[in-house]
Amino acid sequence: MKARVIVTLKTGVLDPQGQAIEGSLEGLGFSGVQSVRQGKVFDLELSATDPVSAKTEIERMCEKLLANTVIENYAVEIIG
Amino acid sequence: MKARVIVTLKTGVLDPQGQAIEGSLEGLGFSGVQSVRQGKVFDLELSATDPVSAKTEIERMCEKLLANTVIENYAVEIIG
Repeated sequence: MKARVIVTLKTGVLDPQGQAIEGSLEGLGFSGVQSVRQGKVFDLELSATDPVSAKTEIERMCEKLLANTVIENYAVEIIG
Repeated sequence: MKARVIVTLKTGVLDPQGQAIEGSLEGLGFSGVQSVRQGKVFDLELSATDPVSAKTEIERMCEKLLANTVIENYAVEIIG
């Protein structure tokens, strides 16, 4: 079973990396970029076959390792 | 207009960071993880209002800065 986890910074948390990218895009001539926020993606392959229990398991992985839940949100999507 | 760009490593490109995460998950007791591949997400806010031209513009940003197209794929999603 495949799953995708998307980890993004919570609203209000400063994102200097995103700001640097925003500045670089402007420098390259891309106008009209109002904000850039960078996050992480994890593409997982699991041996589990039940999507419900797989999702619960992945949420536990996020809480323990994949995301810093103080400053980050995560979203789990089972791809199939 | 908001858009999300997902940048992932092409198939066959080694991902030591993903392998390290896989090892850590195993160490934490999560069995059944067959593979982990890490990628990047960019959440953009643009002043453009036309979704078609915005997507073209973002694809140019990917080619120039956001993705290394030798080893990475990118997907652009207009959120609205």
